[in-house]
Amino acid sequence: MMSAEERSLALHERLHGKIEITGRAACKTADDLSLLYTPGVAEPCRAIAADYQRSWDLTRRSNLVAVITDGTAVLGLGDIGPAAGMPVMEGKCLLFKEFGGVDAIPLCIDTHDIDEAVRTIHLISKSFGGINLEDIAAPRCFEIERRLQELCDIPVFHDDQHGTAIVTSAGLINALRFVGKPMGSLRIVISGAGAAGIAIGTLLIHMGFGDVICCDRQGAIYEGRENLNIAKMQFARISNVEHRRGSLADVMRGADVFVGVSAPGLVTSSMVASMAESPIVFAQANPTPEIMPEEAKAAGAAVVATGRSDYPNQVNNVLAFPGIFKGALASRAPRITEEMEVAAARAIASLVTDEELRADYVIPSALDRRVADVVAAAVARTAGLS
Amino acid sequence: MMSAEERSLALHERLHGKIEITGRAACKTADDLSLLYTPGVAEPCRAIAADYQRSWDLTRRSNLVAVITDGTAVLGLGDIGPAAGMPVMEGKCLLFKEFGGVDAIPLCIDTHDIDEAVRTIHLISKSFGGINLEDIAAPRCFEIERRLQELCDIPVFHDDQHGTAIVTSAGLINALRFVGKPMGSLRIVISGAGAAGIAIGTLLIHMGFGDVICCDRQGAIYEGRENLNIAKMQFARISNVEHRRGSLADVMRGADVFVGVSAPGLVTSSMVASMAESPIVFAQANPTPEIMPEEAKAAGAAVVATGRSDYPNQVNNVLAFPGIFKGALASRAPRITEEMEVAAARAIASLVTDEELRADYVIPSALDRRVADVVAAAVARTAGLS
Repeated sequence: MMSAEERSLALHERLHGKIEITGRAACKTADDLSLLYTPGVAEPCRAIAADYQRSWDLTRRSNLVAVITDGTAVLGLGDIGPAAGMPVMEGKCLLFKEFGGVDAIPLCIDTHDIDEAVRTIHLISKSFGGINLEDIAAPRCFEIERRLQELCDIPVFHDDQHGTAIVTSAGLINALRFVGKPMGSLRIVISGAGAAGIAIGTLLIHMGFGDVICCDRQGAIYEGRENLNIAKMQFARISNVEHRRGSLADVMRGADVFVGVSAPGLVTSSMVASMAESPIVFAQANPTPEIMPEEAKAAGAAVVATGRSDYPNQVNNVLAFPGIFKGALASRAPRITEEMEVAAARAIASLVTDEELRADYVIPSALDRRVADVVAAAVARTAGLS
Repeated sequence: MMSAEERSLALHERLHGKIEITGRAACKTADDLSLLYTPGVAEPCRAIAADYQRSWDLTRRSNLVAVITDGTAVLGLGDIGPAAGMPVMEGKCLLFKEFGGVDAIPLCIDTHDIDEAVRTIHLISKSFGGINLEDIAAPRCFEIERRLQELCDIPVFHDDQHGTAIVTSAGLINALRFVGKPMGSLRIVISGAGAAGIAIGTLLIHMGFGDVICCDRQGAIYEGRENLNIAKMQFARISNVEHRRGSLADVMRGADVFVGVSAPGLVTSSMVASMAESPIVFAQANPTPEIMPEEAKAAGAAVVATGRSDYPNQVNNVLAFPGIFKGALASRAPRITEEMEVAAARAIASLVTDEELRADYVIPSALDRRVADVVAAAVARTAGLS
């Protein structure tokens, strides 16, 4: 039996690309040519030149997202370069269309310089209706996203941050429903202070889950600690209100929720056993979680989620990004706000009914075809309110 | 009756984009997801990281061209800006697929700075197998193309230059066949010294048609003339070997061939009548030629071509670019050489047989479905020789 990776390589060799560009109109006659191209095409060009907003009506822009990487943090493979990141970008584009009906084109940019990355993406941004940043290493990803969103008139969304945060939040909403704990005074420990960890922590705090303590390799992050990059420093200001110090094991003691976006095997049974009653364990390191589900459950975890498709409760970004962009594009939102992210998280969570809710089903299936539309509607509604 | 332009606008409003992105694989099951995306997709990523050349096997790159403009010279509309140029770029992408089976994505870059345009396009170039520059004003287009081709490991082709030059050459090969004049000692006058005019002149000289005299608004271009930009200065060195001076009318006297890529109505009946025996008139200004075909014929023109689809002998770039890139991609050529351009021109010309050849049929129809494959084969064969 070939592994998924071997089969994937063979499939990629056979496919020669997972997406392609197709025409939305027949171009068979001289008349077709004169309307779709010259001389007729001069008229839509003139219309956009006279009113920039018409670029949304008269080109594909209204349904088009660019999926852009610099190849610096591709999956768990690290900085493998722009060309090597493209199979992931193409895959993402395929999922955008398959689940959200959104057209997406993959692009890689060949630079490690933040200024240059920002400038390059900004200069091509009028080609699209939205920008999905992908697999860009922390902390550069934070600055690239922030600066691009200031410059561009379309949404800029780093999926490794916000997509992960939205789906994690959705799962936690339902995990709390299941164990019967209220939001508000929870203690949540996050392992991993990269793009995903900081974004998850920020969203959970914004949504009012409780206090968050985020750990990097040196342990808990608190205000004034040494060796904090600017992103961690900013996060320290809004999190860990009791200024707890110590190792991951130290801060997990008595915590209600563990969220792992770090590395395999960092969490032991005794660490789970040391948590508060009915502990919730989202061990999302990929492909090998911080603790395997069987082990976490044996140690007392009430709900376990992972990033894997072969276990229940998969935290998979495909539950968020197709619907997020579908909703943002439909409402022509110039950015994706935290409120739109919250609306998306609640929408995803809402698809698990009270009757269906159980320890092994707090997150809808990644293949659930209802999700993107429900998310898109919630996002568009929220965008319309702002 | 609505005009082509009004009908085109209505069609664009209805279509909301002329191209879209579609998947090349079904993504319905958890297994599909694990092969097309995570975790399986890590393997093709690793393979490219280990061997950059594999990006041609494992992504869409091997069949993908970017059609890129800065919006500075869109059709005859001038500098209408990046977003307003997109209907032309999308149309071009549609034609790439329709005629050549080549996937093409439209991009606009929002800068007037040459350094920045070059840097931006270079930094995204590993996303594609080729770059088709489009509707970039002269003389900036020359420098942008030259510098990009030096930097990139894929073909960079400014279609307004080379596409036009190739199709014009193809038409002239057959016009000469028709009138029975040999190549070699012809005198050719070109009206217009922008991107197209200089590229046509350069290719005709390279192919050995004879001497070329190119005119701008001030008349004939000769070495040492005042008010020459660097492109015209370089062209002066290889053209107008007799250093002729004077107006367009002056240099057309006794010329064998007129090629217009300039402005409506610049050529009169008496100017055509002043040409050598069996004059050939390619009046390609769009939509209104330098002289209308009826008038040119009445003045003695043996063969007339225009850029219009409603007259015979349409010089339409769609005869060249789909096949050029199809051939270049098939042979993984790192650039499109002048030899490949010559091969393309001869291939287009060859589709008009001796039996079919007549004054009104020296250029195949823009809708002739045989062209792209014949061009692609000739280009790939020539690429293989170098």
